[in-house]
Amino acid sequence: MAIITLTTDFGHKDHFAAATKGAIYSELPDAKIVDISHAVSPFNIPEAAYIIQNAFSSFPKGTIHIIGIDSELNPENKHIAIKLDDHYFVCANNGIMSMICSEIAPQKIVEINIHDRIQSSFPVLDVFVKVACHIARGGTLEVIGKAIDTIKPIKNIVPYVNDNKTQIIGSVIYVDNYGNVITNIKKGFFETIQKGRSFEILARNYRFKKIYDKYSDIVNFDIPENKRHDEGRKLVVFNSGGFLEIALYKSNNSTVGSASTLLGLKPMDAVSISFMPDPVVPQGIEAIQNIKKAADY
Amino acid sequence: MAIITLTTDFGHKDHFAAATKGAIYSELPDAKIVDISHAVSPFNIPEAAYIIQNAFSSFPKGTIHIIGIDSELNPENKHIAIKLDDHYFVCANNGIMSMICSEIAPQKIVEINIHDRIQSSFPVLDVFVKVACHIARGGTLEVIGKAIDTIKPIKNIVPYVNDNKTQIIGSVIYVDNYGNVITNIKKGFFETIQKGRSFEILARNYRFKKIYDKYSDIVNFDIPENKRHDEGRKLVVFNSGGFLEIALYKSNNSTVGSASTLLGLKPMDAVSISFMPDPVVPQGIEAIQNIKKAADY
Amino acid sequence: MAIITLTTDFGHKDHFAAATKGAIYSELPDAKIVDISHAVSPFNIPEAAYIIQNAFSSFPKGTIHIIGIDSELNPENKHIAIKLDDHYFVCANNGIMSMICSEIAPQKIVEINIHDRIQSSFPVLDVFVKVACHIARGGTLEVIGKAIDTIKPIKNIVPYVNDNKTQIIGSVIYVDNYGNVITNIKKGFFETIQKGRSFEILARNYRFKKIYDKYSDIVNFDIPENKRHDEGRKLVVFNSGGFLEIALYKSNNSTVGSASTLLGLKPMDAVSISFMPDPVVPQGIEAIQNIKKAADY
Repeated sequence: MAIITLTTDFGHKDHFAAATKGAIYSELPDAKIVDISHAVSPFNIPEAAYIIQNAFSSFPKGTIHIIGIDSELNPENKHIAIKLDDHYFVCANNGIMSMICSEIAPQKIVEINIHDRIQSSFPVLDVFVKVACHIARGGTLEVIGKAIDTIKPIKNIVPYVNDNKTQIIGSVIYVDNYGNVITNIKKGFFETIQKGRSFEILARNYRFKKIYDKYSDIVNFDIPENKRHDEGRKLVVFNSGGFLEIALYKSNNSTVGSASTLLGLKPMDAVSISFMPDPVVPQGIEAIQNIKKAADY
Repeated sequence: MAIITLTTDFGHKDHFAAATKGAIYSELPDAKIVDISHAVSPFNIPEAAYIIQNAFSSFPKGTIHIIGIDSELNPENKHIAIKLDDHYFVCANNGIMSMICSEIAPQKIVEINIHDRIQSSFPVLDVFVKVACHIARGGTLEVIGKAIDTIKPIKNIVPYVNDNKTQIIGSVIYVDNYGNVITNIKKGFFETIQKGRSFEILARNYRFKKIYDKYSDIVNFDIPENKRHDEGRKLVVFNSGGFLEIALYKSNNSTVGSASTLLGLKPMDAVSISFMPDPVVPQGIEAIQNIKKAADY
Repeated sequence: MAIITLTTDFGHKDHFAAATKGAIYSELPDAKIVDISHAVSPFNIPEAAYIIQNAFSSFPKGTIHIIGIDSELNPENKHIAIKLDDHYFVCANNGIMSMICSEIAPQKIVEINIHDRIQSSFPVLDVFVKVACHIARGGTLEVIGKAIDTIKPIKNIVPYVNDNKTQIIGSVIYVDNYGNVITNIKKGFFETIQKGRSFEILARNYRFKKIYDKYSDIVNFDIPENKRHDEGRKLVVFNSGGFLEIALYKSNNSTVGSASTLLGLKPMDAVSISFMPDPVVPQGIEAIQNIKKAADY
C-alpha cells in the first residue's frame, strides 16, 4: 500500500490534519499516512517548498505527497498533480513545486479537473484526498486532470551570479528549529562557480572564509573540554540537504541564542559570496600561516 | 482493525501521548492510532469539544475516540463511554461530549465502572486505553459500565435568539491556527432564523453584511493582481464545519495579523446578528445599487 | 514487526523527523513508527532522558527507540546501542541513557562501528535508522558494534542525602506541559529515607508538609462547587512516573498560571526535604488537631 504524506500550514491544534487523515482511512483503510509538517507558517510557500524538497526523497518511490498550503480553488489558484522521480505530488499551482522542479524535471503534470464532481469548502480533504487515493489505487493522472506543461514559479529560488563570476548573491530561504539560517546556495552550484578559489561569505556584517562539513568540525578536540568555548560559536556548513547554512554550534534560542537571533538574519535577507582572484600558491612558512588564519574562522 | 484517535491537552513535548500509544500497541499490536490534537489548552473543555466535533465524522464508522482532557477520576468527574453515530467516545463526564450530543442523539451512554480492577495515577493510559481496546476487540459498553441517560452539559453551546426573532446573540468558541475567530452560530440554525432577511453581524465594533462561501470570494479577479489589496481584508464565512467565522483573507499572525489579533476577538466574546424587517423588494436602479453596496462588505 | 520510536530535538516544522521516517519505511515497509517527542529543547540531554524514561516502558518488549539529540559523531560523542529490559535504544553516548541505566542494568551495550560503511551528514537518518532496521530484522548488536561496559553519565540524576539522613536535597529536572515542576526525587527513594517520619518540603520559599496521591485530592468535595477556590492551588504529588512534582491544581499558563511561572521554579533549582525527629505519637485531641493542620497544606 502506498504511503501518503501531508505537508500543510494547518498547525497542531485544529482538527484539519486529523479530518484529512480520517478521510483517507475512510477510502483506504490500509493507507500509511506520514506527517511531513503541519507547522509551515500560514500561506508561506517558500517554506513549504524547502521542507517538501528535503523530505520527499527519503520516502520510497511511489509515495504520494499531499501539500495543503493556500489550496483554496480560485481562478488564479488551480489544483495540480505532478509525477516526479516516481513520486506524486498533489497541491495548488502556487509555486510550491517550483523549487523541486527546478532540480528534477517532472515526468508529468496535470491540472486537476474533478471539481464538478465534488462539493468542497475544504479542498485538501475533499479534492486532494480523492486524488491521492485515486493514485494510491493505481489510477493514472490523466483520469483526474488534463496535462499541462508548466507550473507557476516562485522568485528567489536560484541565487544570482555576476557576469565575471566573482560573486554569488543568494538569499535566506529558511530558518530551522535550531535557529540556523539556510540560504538558497547549494553545494554543487557553489563548487561550479568557485573552481577552487578562496572566498569570503558576507551575511549582514559577518564574514566567513571557511565552509565546514559538519558542525563539530569547529571544535579542537586537542584542547581539554573544560577549556573550550565552542557552544554558540558561529560557523558555515553545507547542511544535510546540501544548502549553505549559517549556524551556531549547539545553538538554543532559549540559552546561547541562534544564528537567526544573534546575527539578525531572516528569510529574504541577502547572503553573498565573493571569490578571490585565482590563487598564486603561497610557499613555505607563509603558506602555513595562511592556512592557520583560515582555520580561525 | 478499528482506528483509535487521541484528543488531549498533553502537548507535544511530554511523554504522555507516546506512553498512551505504547499501552495501546501493547494490548493491540495491529491498532491504527491517529492523533486528532494534543494541543488543546490545558483543561479547556470547549476547545476540545469543538475540535472533536469537527474531526470525528471524517473517520470511518466504528472508530474509537479517546479524549483526555481533565480526566482525573473524582466524585464529580466520572468516566464515560458513548456510542454515537456508530462512533465510540471514551472520556470524562465533564461537558466535552455535550456539543456533539446536542446535534446527534447518542445511541448509548455508560458510566465506566472498571476502576476497582485498575490501579491508576494516569487515567487516560490506565482506564481509557483499557476501555478503548475492549471496544476495539468487539466488546460491548455494558461490560465496562452501567447505562446512564444524561451527560454533563457545557454552557454557551447554543446561541440565544430573542423572542421576536430579530436577533441572534452568539459567542466566540474557538480561535484557529490562522487566527480566524469561530462562533457557535451554525449555518442551518442561522438560515432557520434568517428566512431570507438581510442582516448585520456585529463583533465588537466591526460590522458585516455578507457571509461568503469561501475565503477567496472577496477577491475581484477582474482587477490585475498587483493592484489588489486583499491580503488581510476581513470577512465572514461559514467555515468547512458550518460555523460562522470571522476571518482575515490570508491571515498570518506574524505578518498581516489575524482576525483574532487585529479585531481583538477571543473566546467568550459576543457576536450578534440583527435581522432587518422583511424586505420590501426594491425595484429598478435602486435595487442594483443596494446589491452593489452589500457586495462592498 | 517491531515498533520503532523517535525522540528528538528536531521540532515540528523542519523535515528532519519525516525524512527519518521515510528512510525507515524505505528499508522496512511494514515498520510501525511512533513519535515519542520531537520537542526536546535543542541539545537538552536531561530533558530527553526524563521523557524517554517515562515513555519507553509502556511499549511492548522488543521496541527499538531512536534518540536523536546531539548525535553528530565526533571523537567525544560516539554512537551506541543498548539492550535494556528487552528494549533497544540507539543514540549518542552523551548521557541520555544514564537516567534509565541508573535504575535498570543494561543487558548489553555496544559502541556502533559501521560508520566506515556510511557517508553521513545526518546521523539519525543515516546511522541510527540503519542500526534500528538491523535490529528490527532480528540482527544482533554484536554485528553493528563492539561491546563496552560503561556509558557517559549525567550529573544530578540522583538526589543528595545528608549523613544522618535528616535531609534530601534534590533538584528540578523537568517542567511539563502544564507547567508542573518535576524533581529527581522518586517515591521509592523518598520512602526509604523517610521511614514514616513527618517532613517539610522546601522549594524556594514555599513549604509543603503533605504529598498527595492525585491532583484532585486537594479538593474538599463536601463544599459546594461554587464556594471552592481550588483552581490554581499549589500542591505536591508523586506523579504517574513516581517523581515528586510540585503542581498547581488545573494549572494553565495562559489563565491561572502554573507552578513553574507562579513559584518561579526551573530546571536545576534545588528542592529539599527535611525530616522531623522520630515522632512521639501524639494522643487524644491534640493528635486530631495535628492531622487537621497537616491536611491544610
